[in-house]
Amino acid sequence: MEHVMGYQYDMLIYNVRIASMQDNELPYGELPPHAIAIKDGKIAALIPSDNSLDEAVKHAKNVIDAASLVPLNEDDNAKAKLPWLLPGFIDCHTHLVYGGNRAEEFEMRLQGASYVDIAQRGGGIKGTVEKTRRSDELPLLHSAIKRAKRLCEEGVTTIEVKSGYGLDLDTEVRMLRVAKSLEQHLPVSIKTTYLGAHALPDEFAEDSDGYIDFICDKALPHIASQNLADAVDVFCETIGFSTSQTERVFSCAQQHGLPIKAHVEQLSDSKGAVLAAKYDALSVDHIEYLADNDIPLLAQSGTVAVLLPGAFYYLSEVQKPPVNALRTHNIPMAIATDFNPGSSPLASILTAINMSCVLFQLTPEEALRGATLHGASALGLQDRGVIEAGKLADLTLWDIETPAELAYCINGHRPIAVFKEGKRV
Amino acid sequence: MEHVMGYQYDMLIYNVRIASMQDNELPYGELPPHAIAIKDGKIAALIPSDNSLDEAVKHAKNVIDAASLVPLNEDDNAKAKLPWLLPGFIDCHTHLVYGGNRAEEFEMRLQGASYVDIAQRGGGIKGTVEKTRRSDELPLLHSAIKRAKRLCEEGVTTIEVKSGYGLDLDTEVRMLRVAKSLEQHLPVSIKTTYLGAHALPDEFAEDSDGYIDFICDKALPHIASQNLADAVDVFCETIGFSTSQTERVFSCAQQHGLPIKAHVEQLSDSKGAVLAAKYDALSVDHIEYLADNDIPLLAQSGTVAVLLPGAFYYLSEVQKPPVNALRTHNIPMAIATDFNPGSSPLASILTAINMSCVLFQLTPEEALRGATLHGASALGLQDRGVIEAGKLADLTLWDIETPAELAYCINGHRPIAVFKEGKRV
Ligand SMILES: [Zn+2]
Ligand SMILES: [Zn+2]
Repeated sequence: MEHVMGYQYDMLIYNVRIASMQDNELPYGELPPHAIAIKDGKIAALIPSDNSLDEAVKHAKNVIDAASLVPLNEDDNAKAKLPWLLPGFIDCHTHLVYGGNRAEEFEMRLQGASYVDIAQRGGGIKGTVEKTRRSDELPLLHSAIKRAKRLCEEGVTTIEVKSGYGLDLDTEVRMLRVAKSLEQHLPVSIKTTYLGAHALPDEFAEDSDGYIDFICDKALPHIASQNLADAVDVFCETIGFSTSQTERVFSCAQQHGLPIKAHVEQLSDSKGAVLAAKYDALSVDHIEYLADNDIPLLAQSGTVAVLLPGAFYYLSEVQKPPVNALRTHNIPMAIATDFNPGSSPLASILTAINMSCVLFQLTPEEALRGATLHGASALGLQDRGVIEAGKLADLTLWDIETPAELAYCINGHRPIAVFKEGKRV
Repeated sequence: MEHVMGYQYDMLIYNVRIASMQDNELPYGELPPHAIAIKDGKIAALIPSDNSLDEAVKHAKNVIDAASLVPLNEDDNAKAKLPWLLPGFIDCHTHLVYGGNRAEEFEMRLQGASYVDIAQRGGGIKGTVEKTRRSDELPLLHSAIKRAKRLCEEGVTTIEVKSGYGLDLDTEVRMLRVAKSLEQHLPVSIKTTYLGAHALPDEFAEDSDGYIDFICDKALPHIASQNLADAVDVFCETIGFSTSQTERVFSCAQQHGLPIKAHVEQLSDSKGAVLAAKYDALSVDHIEYLADNDIPLLAQSGTVAVLLPGAFYYLSEVQKPPVNALRTHNIPMAIATDFNPGSSPLASILTAINMSCVLFQLTPEEALRGATLHGASALGLQDRGVIEAGKLADLTLWDIETPAELAYCINGHRPIAVFKEGKRV
């Protein structure tokens, strides 16, 4: 009947090894030989590589022999050289929409300038806020496209983008709109997060409670009513917002039906994670100073631990997140770039994966699950991050012998093919 | 006359800002507005952007408006958005020809395996030697092409490649031939270094002096006579070869007219640098444990200090090279990837540059000079690494506002154009 009504499958990808990231007790959720059948942007079926494959080929509009895409694949033993298929990467924590960049500040600091010097010369987050406020939508979009493109080239198919360099309502809204509109320019899904409580704007200097009033009474309700954000985030820290201020924003987000994410325990144990767990946060992010005792609370609330080794690296931190205790309590660990102009100008999910291994001692499998399956959970997404029938067909194909290679080598690999919702990019 | 005899210039590149890396007291050796005129693979002239440019355009076969190559360049103030032209990068220390890879070993270590476990399962340098010995020329070449391509994509136009994973004569020769033949497959110059004294092969276990005899009596003379190597290197270290063994190899290299490079003071202050200076080495590489007192010797011998932050990062080292003392004595500092399968699977000169800033506190300018001008010196090359009339037209063009951006952001940039000996790649 398919021949009359159209093809059963839009695409069939065969001759692959599959690192599904399913929780099947095998490393990387490896599956026995299967082909992937795609229909309407989703994985329609996993088809065993036996007689049923021959049958399925007849019902597919496009058929891709993945082995043929491997460059210089002249090995006799072609079977051993089948490329690996992984879920598209999910970068679940970025700040990649902003005006200007802070390369000069990076340079000044290495030339010996103090933080005061840098602030006086318009550096720091205040400088980025000023430049972002002055940026129209188009230059903001163009710079964000260039940055997001770097991630997409590595096989990232979903990116979370936070606001937080506008702080005033107009600029925050503009940032969120620009972030969302990246979907029109690149083969990527964007999830937006309102991070008004990122820093205190000058117009509220000395009145941080007044700024929280503004967020809760004005900005957040507006952003929620316009569906501009998929979540709400707060920078809860000694140098950020207090736990009581954080709780006001969480409570407000909850009233507006928006899930919570939280920058917590990056520089000190401020108990932001306890608060986040109380509000069933999707994720707690950074968490270098998270106390072991607070970890069971995260298990109860189903909160994901998002590790951000890029900021740890750039800031030359020494306190590492409590990886062993997170393992003990089975807290899912996600890995993200934290791509931002100040503490993590890291445009590479693969390098974040590598750094999580080298700096935080994650295994390659933990790191790769962190940038796929658990990255999805950190965004509340159940429809991606794993290769399984019914999930989005966001897939990446790699010329590697083992998935561990992706974590091992820096800049060693780019996907030989990327599929976003079933379409080859 | 040019119209009869042919064009005066093969190419003219204009609308660029030039980070020449000349020692002109300006950051990055920036030049006032000039166009680059290229003839026969070399920079024929730097032409001021005034009336003389209009004249030069008439005499150039190809003319490139660099500003037109910038993507999304819709800023009104196009002048402010002129791309930057830099010398092609020189990766002056790699080991990128080898069989196999060590991703599984990386994974095993993170899963808790001990070094003994790993050695028993065929890991470590011995495993790489075994796989390299078993590899024919073609698979060795194919894997090396893939690796070198990653560097070339970042604008590397000269790569040094060491032998040292064969140790026996056949395999060392094969590695050096494969390395050199990369020039036939990629737009890159290759400089080869014979590193027989990299590790002790099993056939000389318990007889390291016997292996040094083999190097000096057989391997090195053969390699020199066949012009297979541009330099000779030794791993001088407590876990490598002793200073007296090292000196025997240096002396032999000198007799055969080959310049010296040296892996020294990576893990301990073994005084290898003192010895290298005595033999007028081109470079001493790693040097985390180099003693301040020994630095004046390097100044006398004109030896370059090659910093390899990738190995420092992967090995989680804490002892940093004596950057301040090197500055005090005006020792040129080069930066390289040390791309190798064990301690530095780093396929990115830009990340090495970033790491030299973040981990070793070099300024972006020092780092970029280290991967251009001083990288050339570390290879004894006077014809490249700087934008100046008479030098090779190995050039990279970047969509950046300041050269510091290249050091600041990880994976943030790829060249928008690369020229190898005057040809656009
Ligand atoms: Zn962040
Ligand atoms: Zn080396």
